[in-house]
Amino acid sequence: MKPRPRKAPVLGIALDGTQPKALYQQICQQLRLAILERRLAPDTRLPSSRMMAAELHCARGTVLAAIDQLVAEGYLVARSASGVTVATTLPDDTPTAPFVDVRASHCPADLPILPERTRALLGRHIPLPTRDIPLAFPVGQPDHSAFPFPLWAKLLEKEWRRPAWHIAGASHPFGDPALREAIASYLGAARGFTCAPEAIVITTGLQQSASLFARIVLEAGETVWIEEPGYPGLREALAMARVRAIPVPIDEYGFSTEKALSLAPEARLALVAPSHHYPLGTVLSLPRRLALLNWAERTKSWVIEDDFDSEYRYAGRPLAPLRVLDRTGRVAYLASFSKLLFQALRLSFLVLPDSLVETTERVMASISTRASLLGQAALARFIADGHLAAHLRRTRLLYAGRQQALIAAARRHLAGQLDVEPDAGGMHLIARPHRSIAADFDDFAVTLAAARKGVQVAPLSHCYAGSAKAQGLLLGYACTPEAEIESAVANLSTVLKHHR
Amino acid sequence: MKPRPRKAPVLGIALDGTQPKALYQQICQQLRLAILERRLAPDTRLPSSRMMAAELHCARGTVLAAIDQLVAEGYLVARSASGVTVATTLPDDTPTAPFVDVRASHCPADLPILPERTRALLGRHIPLPTRDIPLAFPVGQPDHSAFPFPLWAKLLEKEWRRPAWHIAGASHPFGDPALREAIASYLGAARGFTCAPEAIVITTGLQQSASLFARIVLEAGETVWIEEPGYPGLREALAMARVRAIPVPIDEYGFSTEKALSLAPEARLALVAPSHHYPLGTVLSLPRRLALLNWAERTKSWVIEDDFDSEYRYAGRPLAPLRVLDRTGRVAYLASFSKLLFQALRLSFLVLPDSLVETTERVMASISTRASLLGQAALARFIADGHLAAHLRRTRLLYAGRQQALIAAARRHLAGQLDVEPDAGGMHLIARPHRSIAADFDDFAVTLAAARKGVQVAPLSHCYAGSAKAQGLLLGYACTPEAEIESAVANLSTVLKHHR
Repeated sequence: MKPRPRKAPVLGIALDGTQPKALYQQICQQLRLAILERRLAPDTRLPSSRMMAAELHCARGTVLAAIDQLVAEGYLVARSASGVTVATTLPDDTPTAPFVDVRASHCPADLPILPERTRALLGRHIPLPTRDIPLAFPVGQPDHSAFPFPLWAKLLEKEWRRPAWHIAGASHPFGDPALREAIASYLGAARGFTCAPEAIVITTGLQQSASLFARIVLEAGETVWIEEPGYPGLREALAMARVRAIPVPIDEYGFSTEKALSLAPEARLALVAPSHHYPLGTVLSLPRRLALLNWAERTKSWVIEDDFDSEYRYAGRPLAPLRVLDRTGRVAYLASFSKLLFQALRLSFLVLPDSLVETTERVMASISTRASLLGQAALARFIADGHLAAHLRRTRLLYAGRQQALIAAARRHLAGQLDVEPDAGGMHLIARPHRSIAADFDDFAVTLAAARKGVQVAPLSHCYAGSAKAQGLLLGYACTPEAEIESAVANLSTVLKHHR
Repeated sequence: MKPRPRKAPVLGIALDGTQPKALYQQICQQLRLAILERRLAPDTRLPSSRMMAAELHCARGTVLAAIDQLVAEGYLVARSASGVTVATTLPDDTPTAPFVDVRASHCPADLPILPERTRALLGRHIPLPTRDIPLAFPVGQPDHSAFPFPLWAKLLEKEWRRPAWHIAGASHPFGDPALREAIASYLGAARGFTCAPEAIVITTGLQQSASLFARIVLEAGETVWIEEPGYPGLREALAMARVRAIPVPIDEYGFSTEKALSLAPEARLALVAPSHHYPLGTVLSLPRRLALLNWAERTKSWVIEDDFDSEYRYAGRPLAPLRVLDRTGRVAYLASFSKLLFQALRLSFLVLPDSLVETTERVMASISTRASLLGQAALARFIADGHLAAHLRRTRLLYAGRQQALIAAARRHLAGQLDVEPDAGGMHLIARPHRSIAADFDDFAVTLAAARKGVQVAPLSHCYAGSAKAQGLLLGYACTPEAEIESAVANLSTVLKHHR
């Protein structure tokens, strides 16, 4: 929006009496800019103050005040005979505050030309539902009301009351040593492997973890196998590390090294989620695990094990992580706390193979922004004092119940529309179109329609990098109370009926 | 460290009585791993439990307990006639805890082969000084004792006691609205420009800000002008956005668009630090500012204005930021709080041109990890309640005094060794080799030698991307008390004498 001009412009000046800024300041600022931009050339003579005042419909004193100011700043020169002229040499020492309303300064029609890679992403954008707080069914959203925030707040207060220099100032590039200790113990108890706390890097997310690791072990342009489908954020993370991601379609046993080798034998890194594939929930079978490790060992390649939500498992015993079976140090292990505690936390970690610890310490500062130390010591206490384990026990029960409620509600409301299969773990389910509507089901269109009705789902097809995409909806149930599940599933059914 | 074997291994089993883990569990876990790794092939018959017990010097019951467990898990099969054999088909459901000491599992001689781009960074690594807390002269380190941590801790506690859903859960990709409001007001008062709070993106650092912006406005492979010398972290940030950075040597007036056009006329983005160049402290002259903006406007290109430490200015009035002079919305503005408050904070921001706000909102989730919300509301209060302004007033005086003390100490101790020039702003000075020693001065070698004596400096040559590098040392004085300055400068002089 342009400011509405009060009068026709004199020297390009348009005054606006509705602005809080005084008129003399408006004159000042617009004249200054005109001079800086050479619209008023050096030595140009200004109209008389009387004439300017008349044209601008303001008091002559207002114009004089502006001129005085600009003479003092060196933009204008007052000469007795010829009135006021623009200075020949401009002051290099412009004052700080030539106020310009940036919002007013460009025309909305002048939209920028965006590169193809940005436009491609725009086409995938999903607006948030029209409701303020979408309880059903955001993916990756833990139950915020289950988290003990008052306790967390106290731990934070304690953390920052008198922080040590090595925390507030010269902190280790891998993060707070206390948190790295706590994570190492936690991994031993929960995932059955020990690692040196020194091998743990605290990061801002899975993306930073994956990007950092790929950046360190691969040359630009080298090849990485990723799972197809998979978490789209990890593809972008690998692109940031300037490596080439080759999608390898998974089957019911998960990722296949054999198939991967047939697609891209030159790969030097594999990025997999063995305990619980995203988004399908597939568990990588033991023979496949061993095959992958054998490949890494034989070819001295690397594996990134994304163990992002192995904590939520409701049936059966989990398989051992790859990291446990890794005898020669080829596996980097990633996990995140943001999905376990609350999304705004943004604390994740990467367990390096021991042989890369020293290298990573040395190059970290050059290639990656370290994570904020805020919350790291608090999280260390939260883990060490058993609050994490208690929180996981509580939410595991809660989420298991919600998964069952979602399946039951789907049976009641979505029969003949969507098939919802149970999953032994995780925080979301996949709903696939029933065969009667599968032919013309468009998950992205359904997602947009559902958002307009206040139901947040995610399209399965967006998890595919290649052109062969399965259709379906991801329904995150972890933060959705059971009563809400019932009505949201009913709403979803209505959306599907009207959408056809 | 390998566990000390109590006995010669049977089937590769070595028991360790000093371990907290029960002996039967140790047998279990080692047998399981031997089976998984096919060291014990399918159908292999195990020795009798009696024989194993004798060899392992443990009770037969211990061996039987282990065998029972593995039979139950499906690794072993108990056959009446032929005793116990390894299962033909392995269970897919391995239990969680086959404990392996990863530190013991690879040979330290087996160091990984690193890519060239990582080895190149390793060569630039500077170990920290041998002292725990290097007060002199880390670059970019504010005075940690000047910051009101108890107040900060209280603000954090308040922030997280009962966070709203839109903070803890479904937060805006650009960060906390309250912080973005506070920054918008602060910029109006301190830097003389207004921007819509909606145009402000909270990021984890200058690197993320620069990388995000380049990623959005440029195609992969397009060209960006950067200043030579400049901040090395920004080069890596641009590489993450997959754009090509062309270093443009600056002169006494700063960055020259004319020179840049002669080097790379195809560039579509310029990344400059106009108020106070890093590391040289040069101020971009007004005609150069206008030339750069004219180029951006004419060619519909973009400018990133890195305003990272404009807050510290001790002499003269600052020039108006490019953003103030930008009439057509081509300038993105970056700054960071980590250098103003404390390094561990990792909160920075990017002010987008208005025309890119909506696009960035839509693609942000796909391309960038958002900053942690921790501390954002606390910082908003810190700014809004005037604590930031008060802190800057205090530290401005403090740092101005320290710069003078450093110059005075350099005159006393470093005459004929290093020439230290004053700077009208910033948090560090550049010390250049005196002409008598300039010929064989190696700033990287001096940096390493100084670190061994407890003095942390940074080599100027590392700020150059090209092969023509100036030699010098960066001396950060902001966190160095005056008494410490005196002795550290004396130490540095000794280092230089012995180094020659």
